[in-house]
Amino acid sequence: MKKINNPTKNNWSEILKRPTQTFTDIEETVKGIFKEIQQKGDVAVQKYTSLFDGSSSENCLVSEAEINEAISLVSEELKNAIEVAKTNIFKFHEAQQTQKIEIETTEGVFCWQEKRPIQKVGLYIPGGSAPLFSTVLMLAIPAKIAGCTEIILCSPPNKQGKINPAILYAANLCGVTKIFKVGGIQAIGAMTFGTATIPQVYKIFGPGNQFVTVAKQVATQYGVGIDMPAGPSELLVYADESSIPSFVASDLLSQAEHGTDSQVVLVTTSEDVVAAVEREVYLQLEQLPRKEIAIQAIEKSKLISVENEQIALDLINEYGPEHFIICSKNERFFVDGIQNAGSVFIGNFTPESAGDYASGTNHTLPTNGYAKTYSGVNLDSFMKAMTFQKITEKGIQNIGKSIELMAEAEGLQAHKNAVTLRLNLNK
Amino acid sequence: MKKINNPTKNNWSEILKRPTQTFTDIEETVKGIFKEIQQKGDVAVQKYTSLFDGSSSENCLVSEAEINEAISLVSEELKNAIEVAKTNIFKFHEAQQTQKIEIETTEGVFCWQEKRPIQKVGLYIPGGSAPLFSTVLMLAIPAKIAGCTEIILCSPPNKQGKINPAILYAANLCGVTKIFKVGGIQAIGAMTFGTATIPQVYKIFGPGNQFVTVAKQVATQYGVGIDMPAGPSELLVYADESSIPSFVASDLLSQAEHGTDSQVVLVTTSEDVVAAVEREVYLQLEQLPRKEIAIQAIEKSKLISVENEQIALDLINEYGPEHFIICSKNERFFVDGIQNAGSVFIGNFTPESAGDYASGTNHTLPTNGYAKTYSGVNLDSFMKAMTFQKITEKGIQNIGKSIELMAEAEGLQAHKNAVTLRLNLNK
Repeated sequence: MKKINNPTKNNWSEILKRPTQTFTDIEETVKGIFKEIQQKGDVAVQKYTSLFDGSSSENCLVSEAEINEAISLVSEELKNAIEVAKTNIFKFHEAQQTQKIEIETTEGVFCWQEKRPIQKVGLYIPGGSAPLFSTVLMLAIPAKIAGCTEIILCSPPNKQGKINPAILYAANLCGVTKIFKVGGIQAIGAMTFGTATIPQVYKIFGPGNQFVTVAKQVATQYGVGIDMPAGPSELLVYADESSIPSFVASDLLSQAEHGTDSQVVLVTTSEDVVAAVEREVYLQLEQLPRKEIAIQAIEKSKLISVENEQIALDLINEYGPEHFIICSKNERFFVDGIQNAGSVFIGNFTPESAGDYASGTNHTLPTNGYAKTYSGVNLDSFMKAMTFQKITEKGIQNIGKSIELMAEAEGLQAHKNAVTLRLNLNK
Repeated sequence: MKKINNPTKNNWSEILKRPTQTFTDIEETVKGIFKEIQQKGDVAVQKYTSLFDGSSSENCLVSEAEINEAISLVSEELKNAIEVAKTNIFKFHEAQQTQKIEIETTEGVFCWQEKRPIQKVGLYIPGGSAPLFSTVLMLAIPAKIAGCTEIILCSPPNKQGKINPAILYAANLCGVTKIFKVGGIQAIGAMTFGTATIPQVYKIFGPGNQFVTVAKQVATQYGVGIDMPAGPSELLVYADESSIPSFVASDLLSQAEHGTDSQVVLVTTSEDVVAAVEREVYLQLEQLPRKEIAIQAIEKSKLISVENEQIALDLINEYGPEHFIICSKNERFFVDGIQNAGSVFIGNFTPESAGDYASGTNHTLPTNGYAKTYSGVNLDSFMKAMTFQKITEKGIQNIGKSIELMAEAEGLQAHKNAVTLRLNLNK
């Protein structure tokens, strides 16, 4: 672990730098596959499923029989756990519903804002060693609450042409309308253009490897929205003497096990905390099945000690972590002062895992400093705000003159004329 | 004007197709200029200001003296008009403020969502023949309400090194913190990387020509957010016999005068409306100073008549217009049924010009079908939603078992361990 003591402000940006990812090579591959899918549809999708996933299944739509099989394969214990998570995620996202906002800005000028669902959305769930059924909950539950009419899900099949049962179970439970056994670039391409089998969607959500990430970026060039730009997952913990070193270490490690490129940072005002946490990290690391992955992220992790809490807060705001854990006797200071973070975890009994699975908050969050600009996935991610206005004859009399003057000053005579005609109707 | 009668649904996508824009050539130019700005900062910005705008002013920061001069140059009449617009825009966007959303999802598990401002934002205002001071209002007012701490504005100078006084006046009135006489690709590049003079920002807003549009797209590759992808402006009017043809024509023309690539569409169930509106369009066109521009957009405009209102609504939702005017005796049907539109204008006395300037709604709206996915600019565009959670010792007992089970099923043992340690603290 890299220990950094009282770095000068000039060095912050260097210390907090994330490794840059360059995707130029991948972009060409993505564009080639996209072109093929645009031209050949399902045939191209099937070709790449066979090539990349080793599955030669003819029909990529998951059948009712397959879903029923999955339901029977998931243990009752896990079903109950998923139910707890679903209930909490549902409660928190349902509470995010907003009412119509209506204002009579001037007498006779009625303006309102309403949110309406994005009609067609696509959820991407990676396959591989860790079947992320929790991400199905995080995406499908708010999509359903928002009222999206078409909620499709793509996930790569294994060599036997199957998707992990927990993913199918969660998707079915949360109201996904169609599930497709398609992954990677070809899944994103299919949702971008639509094929005979897979519908085109307006917005694509979900995590993925670098190929999926680049494919989502390329999809935006074809008019499809995406949840957010993705980068390696991150955790920053602020801990002082009131923290429990073994807890802090376990949080750092739960981030580290995500991947070798995971970003793990500890900020503290106490050298003792640095020493105690480091000791605990190496102790716990020994017992992890994903030790080989975690150790690489841990080697690159940073333990930063600074002089006081204000400096700590400034540094954390400059970094803008995806996940931010606060274990401090002065937690209010950090909660009030944090400007840039995806999701914040407060106190010794709030591990990041809680938000990853079951507290109710969403785990699809901005990485790579995007917390300075982007929200994590929330109910609004599945809706768009539309504005409406209705002006009475009296209303246009009230604001018409101002519009005429401004339109004229901008050199837009036809804009002015549209008002003048209305003002003069009864003259 | 192109008249289309009862098109079959198969042909809708062809009829409603917007002209595709290809930006590949421009992208190379943008990347070259960006690289130079990244390396040489202000020197490169100044070079391109001199090259593209013909202005050789050394200092691009607008001084207090220049702002005072601008204040003295704007007529009292226009100042009053701007005040009316500002008041309405302020009221409507202030009403969009949201409260903290807080839920105890399970006993002892407290989750909340709060919106916090994007700290540094950049507003881009084009120069040229039409000085868009109205766009300054539309962007700076919500930025100020949101609480953004740094609100900078870039706009190209004319050959005399000046920005239109109305733009400076509006920027100063609405709380822009710094104004720079820099336009085009170099303005977007400077806000992306920051120079000694121009601060780096987290998100860039505002319209622009194709160079600015591509520069904003490229900026996103460097981690900067943008308001939305841009395309030519659009208006779709639905009008039945209750509409007033001269009003409808004036609205179509106010869209057409924006540019030769403006998209102008009329949808109706009445052939009589088609004929009457077309007649009025050509009558009014004669009197417009921007006739040469408007006529080109009008030639390409589409007058589509369909059999009934349901078909009209379906077709309009498939198009997803930026601006949607409803002049119908059955307006409720369209207001309730519209799923995809940027901003909606209802009734004979609600011209698009009203929303462009002074009703209170925002005029920065999604074009090119993006209304299916994106909101127009609103208060939330200047904020991000952050989530928080605080779990008590009792709370983690309540949900801990579920987290352990799910983490284990996803193969993430360290995630499980972070919970197990907390559950076992007093064992």
